[in-house]
Amino acid sequence: MATSSQSFSWPVRVYFEDTDSGGVVYYANYLKFFERARSEWLRAIDVSQQDLIDRHKIMFVVAGATVDYLAPARLDDDLKITVSVKRLGRASVEFAQQVWCANTLLTNAQIKVACVGCGSMRPQTFPQEVLEKIRGKV
Amino acid sequence: MATSSQSFSWPVRVYFEDTDSGGVVYYANYLKFFERARSEWLRAIDVSQQDLIDRHKIMFVVAGATVDYLAPARLDDDLKITVSVKRLGRASVEFAQQVWCANTLLTNAQIKVACVGCGSMRPQTFPQEVLEKIRGKV
Amino acid sequence: MATSSQSFSWPVRVYFEDTDSGGVVYYANYLKFFERARSEWLRAIDVSQQDLIDRHKIMFVVAGATVDYLAPARLDDDLKITVSVKRLGRASVEFAQQVWCANTLLTNAQIKVACVGCGSMRPQTFPQEVLEKIRGKV
Amino acid sequence: MATSSQSFSWPVRVYFEDTDSGGVVYYANYLKFFERARSEWLRAIDVSQQDLIDRHKIMFVVAGATVDYLAPARLDDDLKITVSVKRLGRASVEFAQQVWCANTLLTNAQIKVACVGCGSMRPQTFPQEVLEKIRGKV
Repeated sequence: MATSSQSFSWPVRVYFEDTDSGGVVYYANYLKFFERARSEWLRAIDVSQQDLIDRHKIMFVVAGATVDYLAPARLDDDLKITVSVKRLGRASVEFAQQVWCANTLLTNAQIKVACVGCGSMRPQTFPQEVLEKIRGKV
Repeated sequence: MATSSQSFSWPVRVYFEDTDSGGVVYYANYLKFFERARSEWLRAIDVSQQDLIDRHKIMFVVAGATVDYLAPARLDDDLKITVSVKRLGRASVEFAQQVWCANTLLTNAQIKVACVGCGSMRPQTFPQEVLEKIRGKV
Repeated sequence: MATSSQSFSWPVRVYFEDTDSGGVVYYANYLKFFERARSEWLRAIDVSQQDLIDRHKIMFVVAGATVDYLAPARLDDDLKITVSVKRLGRASVEFAQQVWCANTLLTNAQIKVACVGCGSMRPQTFPQEVLEKIRGKV
Repeated sequence: MATSSQSFSWPVRVYFEDTDSGGVVYYANYLKFFERARSEWLRAIDVSQQDLIDRHKIMFVVAGATVDYLAPARLDDDLKITVSVKRLGRASVEFAQQVWCANTLLTNAQIKVACVGCGSMRPQTFPQEVLEKIRGKV
């Protein structure tokens, strides 16, 4: 079971590219931040997405995302993006992810990632070694 | 009540900027498409977002988004983004939005948009004229 | 020879996604607008980029870009992006592109696009039929 | 005079968001990388862009950019973005910037940044303290 002490976190600095003319981070860009953090979490557990594509002909795609925007991030903010595994299936994994600025929770998300065949885009079970690496974190 | 015959739709062509190296549209970019369609829907009911900022010191921000990714869009696809109002409150509105490619539903979303003060980012009720323009579509 | 009467133009509306917290269109995003216009110009002369990838194993990549930012575009602006061929080589083509808002020139660019092999990313001559389609516009 | 030993460099990891379906980093996104590095360079010499906006009512905008794309960056690449001042004027500064992947130069750029009034977008001279901080690096 994932507990907060086990959750992974990745720093993200807010640049002009992330903001919009409302003066805050554009709502779609938090999904980029979440994906950066998941990519770094995979790297941390030694799963290479390029290797999955090249050797296994599979890739990870987002099947669903629910995001609650609680407070806005702004230019220059130093954010912390968290990743924790909530449920691990044979062909998909559900993450809880959050965006924090200092001690303020800005955004709360559940992201479901599925394993699919490159080209076919059909669901495929995770390779055993990937399952075990993720389980090490569950 | 919003019925499908009343739903608004906006065409979006997929360019290289929208895709990623997985060969499909990057998952965050559908939120851009949804926002383009909502912006055009507002324009169609004669609500100017710049005018709300300048005259009323309010703006619309996304408070929540739930997106189901059913099938991927690809380079050159000619998409149709739909907008319909599901629930209209005094300070927020909930949209159902979809992405279609020909007769295939690619993405299904619920997006909650809140009206907030510029600067304060605190909830504010919609100006009466905006409520009435939206109601004309509910 | 390309004359202004032969130049192709494509409309682009400015949305929140295009702007930054400076209140204007973010400087990198004009390159997206230029690419949209070039893609539509290719479509207009009946060259399919996906088809070049699938059948010819080649693709177009930008080899160089020079952009002068003369005046900013803002939210809701209704822009016109122009495309004209300045020089056509055997393996590359140079475009002049501009961004207009009503009668104001906002941005001026020269973009050099090269034809390369997919995977190798090495220069390759344009297929004869593509050369002829482009020449029809030169 | 800026020499290579004085140039500032900033690391950028390539994520899916940066790539396109051609399998490489989308050409506009290098401008985001350049801007991130310039922002971090400003932070390193203790110039706060938000503070310039709030206190001085000025901001930095890109007036011109020339980019040569020599070789593509790909997913997971660990890039180094360099910044060096080539010429410092009273109201603008010209940077040389490069993108490196290990020992390979991928992209070469000259970027001219101007100081303008917020709102007016008209050229304005740099505040004296900013000039001095930049000069410390020239």
